[in-house]
Amino acid sequence: MDKRSGNEMWGGRFASGPDAIMEAINASIDFDKRLYEEDIAGSLAHAEMLAGVGILSGDDAAKIRQGLETIRRDIAEGRFEFRRDREDIHMNVEARLAELIGPAAGRLHTARSRNDQVAVDFRMHVRAAFRDLDRALLALIEALLDRAEEHAATVMPGFTHLQAAQPVTFGHHCLAYVEMVARDRSRVADALARLDECPLGAAALAGTGFPIDRHRTAAALGFSGPTRNSLDSVSDRDFALDFLATASICATHLSRLAEEIVIWSTPQFDFVRLSDSFSTGSSIMPQKKNPDAAELVRAKTGRINGSLVSLLTVMKGLPLSYSKDMQEDKEQVFDAIDNLALALAAITGMVRDMGVNAQKMRAAAGAGFSTATDLADFLVREAGLPFREAHHVTGRVVALAEERRVALEALPLDALKAVDERITDAVYSVLSVDASVASRTSFGGTAPDNVRAQVAFWRERLAS
Amino acid sequence: MDKRSGNEMWGGRFASGPDAIMEAINASIDFDKRLYEEDIAGSLAHAEMLAGVGILSGDDAAKIRQGLETIRRDIAEGRFEFRRDREDIHMNVEARLAELIGPAAGRLHTARSRNDQVAVDFRMHVRAAFRDLDRALLALIEALLDRAEEHAATVMPGFTHLQAAQPVTFGHHCLAYVEMVARDRSRVADALARLDECPLGAAALAGTGFPIDRHRTAAALGFSGPTRNSLDSVSDRDFALDFLATASICATHLSRLAEEIVIWSTPQFDFVRLSDSFSTGSSIMPQKKNPDAAELVRAKTGRINGSLVSLLTVMKGLPLSYSKDMQEDKEQVFDAIDNLALALAAITGMVRDMGVNAQKMRAAAGAGFSTATDLADFLVREAGLPFREAHHVTGRVVALAEERRVALEALPLDALKAVDERITDAVYSVLSVDASVASRTSFGGTAPDNVRAQVAFWRERLAS
Amino acid sequence: MDKRSGNEMWGGRFASGPDAIMEAINASIDFDKRLYEEDIAGSLAHAEMLAGVGILSGDDAAKIRQGLETIRRDIAEGRFEFRRDREDIHMNVEARLAELIGPAAGRLHTARSRNDQVAVDFRMHVRAAFRDLDRALLALIEALLDRAEEHAATVMPGFTHLQAAQPVTFGHHCLAYVEMVARDRSRVADALARLDECPLGAAALAGTGFPIDRHRTAAALGFSGPTRNSLDSVSDRDFALDFLATASICATHLSRLAEEIVIWSTPQFDFVRLSDSFSTGSSIMPQKKNPDAAELVRAKTGRINGSLVSLLTVMKGLPLSYSKDMQEDKEQVFDAIDNLALALAAITGMVRDMGVNAQKMRAAAGAGFSTATDLADFLVREAGLPFREAHHVTGRVVALAEERRVALEALPLDALKAVDERITDAVYSVLSVDASVASRTSFGGTAPDNVRAQVAFWRERLAS
Amino acid sequence: MDKRSGNEMWGGRFASGPDAIMEAINASIDFDKRLYEEDIAGSLAHAEMLAGVGILSGDDAAKIRQGLETIRRDIAEGRFEFRRDREDIHMNVEARLAELIGPAAGRLHTARSRNDQVAVDFRMHVRAAFRDLDRALLALIEALLDRAEEHAATVMPGFTHLQAAQPVTFGHHCLAYVEMVARDRSRVADALARLDECPLGAAALAGTGFPIDRHRTAAALGFSGPTRNSLDSVSDRDFALDFLATASICATHLSRLAEEIVIWSTPQFDFVRLSDSFSTGSSIMPQKKNPDAAELVRAKTGRINGSLVSLLTVMKGLPLSYSKDMQEDKEQVFDAIDNLALALAAITGMVRDMGVNAQKMRAAAGAGFSTATDLADFLVREAGLPFREAHHVTGRVVALAEERRVALEALPLDALKAVDERITDAVYSVLSVDASVASRTSFGGTAPDNVRAQVAFWRERLAS
Repeated sequence: MDKRSGNEMWGGRFASGPDAIMEAINASIDFDKRLYEEDIAGSLAHAEMLAGVGILSGDDAAKIRQGLETIRRDIAEGRFEFRRDREDIHMNVEARLAELIGPAAGRLHTARSRNDQVAVDFRMHVRAAFRDLDRALLALIEALLDRAEEHAATVMPGFTHLQAAQPVTFGHHCLAYVEMVARDRSRVADALARLDECPLGAAALAGTGFPIDRHRTAAALGFSGPTRNSLDSVSDRDFALDFLATASICATHLSRLAEEIVIWSTPQFDFVRLSDSFSTGSSIMPQKKNPDAAELVRAKTGRINGSLVSLLTVMKGLPLSYSKDMQEDKEQVFDAIDNLALALAAITGMVRDMGVNAQKMRAAAGAGFSTATDLADFLVREAGLPFREAHHVTGRVVALAEERRVALEALPLDALKAVDERITDAVYSVLSVDASVASRTSFGGTAPDNVRAQVAFWRERLAS
Repeated sequence: MDKRSGNEMWGGRFASGPDAIMEAINASIDFDKRLYEEDIAGSLAHAEMLAGVGILSGDDAAKIRQGLETIRRDIAEGRFEFRRDREDIHMNVEARLAELIGPAAGRLHTARSRNDQVAVDFRMHVRAAFRDLDRALLALIEALLDRAEEHAATVMPGFTHLQAAQPVTFGHHCLAYVEMVARDRSRVADALARLDECPLGAAALAGTGFPIDRHRTAAALGFSGPTRNSLDSVSDRDFALDFLATASICATHLSRLAEEIVIWSTPQFDFVRLSDSFSTGSSIMPQKKNPDAAELVRAKTGRINGSLVSLLTVMKGLPLSYSKDMQEDKEQVFDAIDNLALALAAITGMVRDMGVNAQKMRAAAGAGFSTATDLADFLVREAGLPFREAHHVTGRVVALAEERRVALEALPLDALKAVDERITDAVYSVLSVDASVASRTSFGGTAPDNVRAQVAFWRERLAS
Repeated sequence: MDKRSGNEMWGGRFASGPDAIMEAINASIDFDKRLYEEDIAGSLAHAEMLAGVGILSGDDAAKIRQGLETIRRDIAEGRFEFRRDREDIHMNVEARLAELIGPAAGRLHTARSRNDQVAVDFRMHVRAAFRDLDRALLALIEALLDRAEEHAATVMPGFTHLQAAQPVTFGHHCLAYVEMVARDRSRVADALARLDECPLGAAALAGTGFPIDRHRTAAALGFSGPTRNSLDSVSDRDFALDFLATASICATHLSRLAEEIVIWSTPQFDFVRLSDSFSTGSSIMPQKKNPDAAELVRAKTGRINGSLVSLLTVMKGLPLSYSKDMQEDKEQVFDAIDNLALALAAITGMVRDMGVNAQKMRAAAGAGFSTATDLADFLVREAGLPFREAHHVTGRVVALAEERRVALEALPLDALKAVDERITDAVYSVLSVDASVASRTSFGGTAPDNVRAQVAFWRERLAS
Repeated sequence: MDKRSGNEMWGGRFASGPDAIMEAINASIDFDKRLYEEDIAGSLAHAEMLAGVGILSGDDAAKIRQGLETIRRDIAEGRFEFRRDREDIHMNVEARLAELIGPAAGRLHTARSRNDQVAVDFRMHVRAAFRDLDRALLALIEALLDRAEEHAATVMPGFTHLQAAQPVTFGHHCLAYVEMVARDRSRVADALARLDECPLGAAALAGTGFPIDRHRTAAALGFSGPTRNSLDSVSDRDFALDFLATASICATHLSRLAEEIVIWSTPQFDFVRLSDSFSTGSSIMPQKKNPDAAELVRAKTGRINGSLVSLLTVMKGLPLSYSKDMQEDKEQVFDAIDNLALALAAITGMVRDMGVNAQKMRAAAGAGFSTATDLADFLVREAGLPFREAHHVTGRVVALAEERRVALEALPLDALKAVDERITDAVYSVLSVDASVASRTSFGGTAPDNVRAQVAFWRERLAS
């Protein structure tokens, strides 16, 4: 080691050591140590390949393998001393390897560079995060399907503008989220397919003259094949952007459900009751039961959107290939991984645990003349009115009910006929909320049988 | 029309007309008229389906079709008077239809609502935008492939940290962008697959009791099938978020190339020269030739990222199903569609037209001891040094060359041997930039033959 | 005009005209024509100054003035033909001036450039926008103060986590928004002070050798003085960022009130009723009264945040001085100006017009044991319990009331004493919502007298 | 402690303990322990005030003071055990206080709540951060002024579009950043004035009935006075948004200088050379000297913008008063505080340390006919041409020089006269870069004397 510099690796040409500021802004070991498993896996695959093509002797390869396994164990068991003056996970592992096995360690870096090393480490980490995300999304879907099945016929208000519009079922509402989360899963699948190329072997940026076998390292690390362009390999952070974009859209979905839980948990709505596990009390107001978990899920959206903005902004206008700006990629993604996982676990728990007050939902569904559309549809279907005219007649009926402060079905037939002669007593069969939801049998409609069929559809799809 | 209200459609129950502020904030016709083709296509498909299942008489359906065709023509030819008091494109078309064909117009709205209407209109518009985007991306790839082929062996500096690191070829650099843009195309394809479900028939939010055939309208409008959940159908703007996320990542890619063009166009670099068509002069500095088009492409990233943030923020925490907040979706997407199209056209034009100064690129590639890595690799390969030791030896050689102010290949052998005895005169075969790039034959490496093979690969892939 | 180019101004050195793409991406006249008044005012001030220091003859100055006045009138009255091939507002005005007054027009551009011209035009426009914003904020404060005074003693639930926590008054709630909006006004004032420097005379970027008097133009245009650095003058868009940051924070405030209006307008809460002017009906659900205006105000936050992100992203990493990227500044700001103005007008209208259902508010305030804290405070104050112990006793009392399904004040004294012997019948004086709010007389507390004093405080402050 | 719950404070009413997910998502102690000094200071002020108004006995107050001082020391010296089951810093301190001093600890929470406690803690922390930021900004200004003075007459190209436009001096360029950073300081001052109100005593949300003296606690904590509205006091995070907006704009400024340093450090420009302390080498390319610190400063902009977006998004649409979403405020702000501090330290270090290559700057300033504007101005001033005509003449002169491949000042007079007869040999006095910069004496112009005067102006202003 060169005495003039605190850094063993690149200090040779520098007259003075990097000062404290530089170490503070430059070192990434505090966060990229999270990549240690991927880093070691990458090195193991690289060493095995180097040995396979004859660049490394079998003996050196064995020493390297043994040394790396020791390091992996030491890190896993908390015995490894991470050093900031060794900057990052790659240098920490490599320098420790040199301490453990001597000069052979120096041969491991043949035909690679920190640029392709971090690219493959980070990509594998994001790949694992996508897979974990997919499992968490699946768990949420399963929770939603269970509640959907249970409440296939539980009538609640269908809202537009947070105003009751038409009755729907709670099961149907749960299935709307199944659709959203299923789309999230499709984004995960798409992104996984897109990142399924291994950058290892791109070396610093130009490829290498060593006769390496990139298909072999790619396979060893679970990729379909190597990336096709070395410059892109070390410049590309699309997989991280894909993760953040996917996470942001997913978090947006969760925020909608979280908002509903917050609103539904008010005494005014009282549609659901969170379990004690997912709510908290107040240090000063003993009677409160606060939907903290739902609020935090809602807030995580901001955090994750912010991470997406961060990385998009960092990557804007960066010339090829690697620039140090790109070191700002990891913390944003790690933060999004952790917080989305937490949000998904919390919302899945809430969906599973929350009590559903079917009585309150039903009462709210029936209030506010929510079957007015059914009346209008009836007038079109049975009396042949054009829709717009039916709409005006319905408006007058509603005004009458409002004036008399009664529900639509409580208006006597003569009062209805006074509004429009064409109304018959068959109308009463469409004015109840149960009749309303049962009638919505169009594909995708809220009729309980539809809901059950959709649950079955999803169960089958998930099973296959 | 009800005299108490300025709005024919929903004014019945209101004691006073919406005032000027409300009209200004509420009306969307100024921007959603852009959806007129989709709106009319949707209505035509709906009317035909209604007739097919017997809800509409053949006579009414014919009148509706004729009326809608007239309106389409009138709009296309600039004869249609859009009215703000009719709020949006749906009401403008429908009210005009009523003027043209009378009461039959009123039957068109049977079993649908503005909620599913706007969902299908906007989705079709975004679908078309994705398809246009794909074509524009393809055009850029083709331009890049042409330049890559032309410059497969044109040596330029490969940069990291905007410092020349190792020589690469300009063709290889172009191919890095081919990879990025190809990933953009894969995002487009994924999003198109994801949005390939037709929301029409979800009605207001709950489906309908009319015996509609949603598979039929879906097919008529070019979708694989209908959406599965009516609440989700009217609440979902994922397709718009997918567009904006895809556009943001794509714009980020373009911004990187644009930044390079700006830097390369400086007299200091002088790597490329934009055609007059894509640069401008200055009103006060006659000698200037400014890369305006590249700067504007770079800036568009900010605009498009902003639109993504806008819609993510708008959608955050919205309870199901439709909320008026969602009206803020369209302008963001329209703006991104237009500006990304412009940016792509401009960058494609620049790529096609720009002059490449191969001489300057080559000179820059050779400066700065850019083949130092080749020397280090040589020491590993030929003299068996461990990589890290080779690195230190190379550092001393570079220091020597720097001291003597000569290129690496201009150092005499005895000087090299004085640094390390193991250096032989075979070393001179790796110190030139041509030797350097030619040697990088690893898969994905910059060797000219690799570049040509990759061009062929992409040409074939695009052809199939 | 040079025949080889479509652009009269900088075409001289270009072999071919800018093609359609370039014109489309480059021209800004479609949006910067909005700056015409500022552009002409700037030119008038510049011409007058040039004449004053002897650079321009009195005759030329008079012609220029006359010509510019004609153009101003023509634009104001819709007679001016804006031409895209003249790119921007500056060139459109200048070229037209040349048509009107001949060669003298050419002298106007002495000692200035489009760079400082657009800087001063845009800055004056933003200055005017800030002033308009301030007036709109003031109007909102006045509306809030009127409602606060009217409802100084109207009891409503004070929410945390959207759960009723302690009773407050609606007047107090309105005053919370007065505080927020007053902070918005202070941001406006700060930004106005910060932008109060005139960039005109910075010329292209370096200042000029002409003996101009920048203090004179600054004064003529209403600035305290000229900017101090010519490079900064043409590179700086802080005033635009200040506007967008101020607008984003303000819009965030408005979104909170808008969210409350949406929630309070539900039949479940029924705290407020929007006037017909600020709500809409549904085309299919005649009974609905939707809080569209509030939803749109809430959504505008996303739009304005997006504009802030856009401009921050555009400005990131731009080398000095002017870059064409900066042309992307105006549309973002214009959009934020217009949409924030609309949002403020709408929310002010809603605050003024909305009906307040004091009965519902009061009932909700009394439910849920919302005076539990008052009980705990009583125990501390009167019985000397440490706060944490008082909290536990209160929890047991609430549990008892919950079990018996009665309000706290309906529990008989012996039941209370059974929980804790130290409770006396003085407790009943603190358990009603009126007693609760009346007791909160700490500075800033919700007691009706406090509310009235605060209204008086603000009225006086605004008057001075 | 209640055995049924893991949380001592609010567990009383809950049947089961919060499970692991909830603890993970709910606990904030991992990050809010950073507020411990402010939390203890707030408690000390509160206790002293309670004693002062007679709510607390002198004896209890003394015990509390002593206990809190012990805790402060324990935390400062790393001896304090933070517990996740105690959720946050407030509970950790309070529970530990109870262990230390017994029941008196329970009296400390009289007339306050975690809601106002966190509001005052966080506000004081942000206040300190603003003050630190101001010092860091001042240090950067001083570094810039030193370099500006040193290089008042060092000629460099003034760029627009990254193309040399007119010569300026490096001192003038440094002063442009002084202006930006001075505006940043004014934002800090404005924000400090705006946050100068103490929320302590707002209690949970409604104020309190205890006879507290909020002016006293405000003064004790260094605020001008108490906040005026209790709901706003616990709902407001404007001070955090002000910090993030200020930080984002500041980071944007820094990113511009960082970008320039990156570009200027290329061999192609070679205007500046970073000290070894602020650059790094490459593990594989020994000759590289990478401007890592500048790249990281540039990238921090993305990170900080992301934090701003996060908090704006979190706060959007939150009903009053406190919602748990607001717990997501701190990490964003802490991250921005730390990263902006790091970026400022790094850029200040770079500005102080970097070598300036005046020779290269001068040569670049002279290339590219950068005094063309001076020629045009000469024609206007001396020969009386209208500016636009002078511009055309200049264009022809430049074309001639370009054709002959010579600098403008190397064209013989007869050649110039052949272009335009009115050119005299006085022209040569304006064609050199020194003459050019010396001539720009308009206020704010780049003339060396102006630069020196501006340095003096700023030095005086900072001194006062």
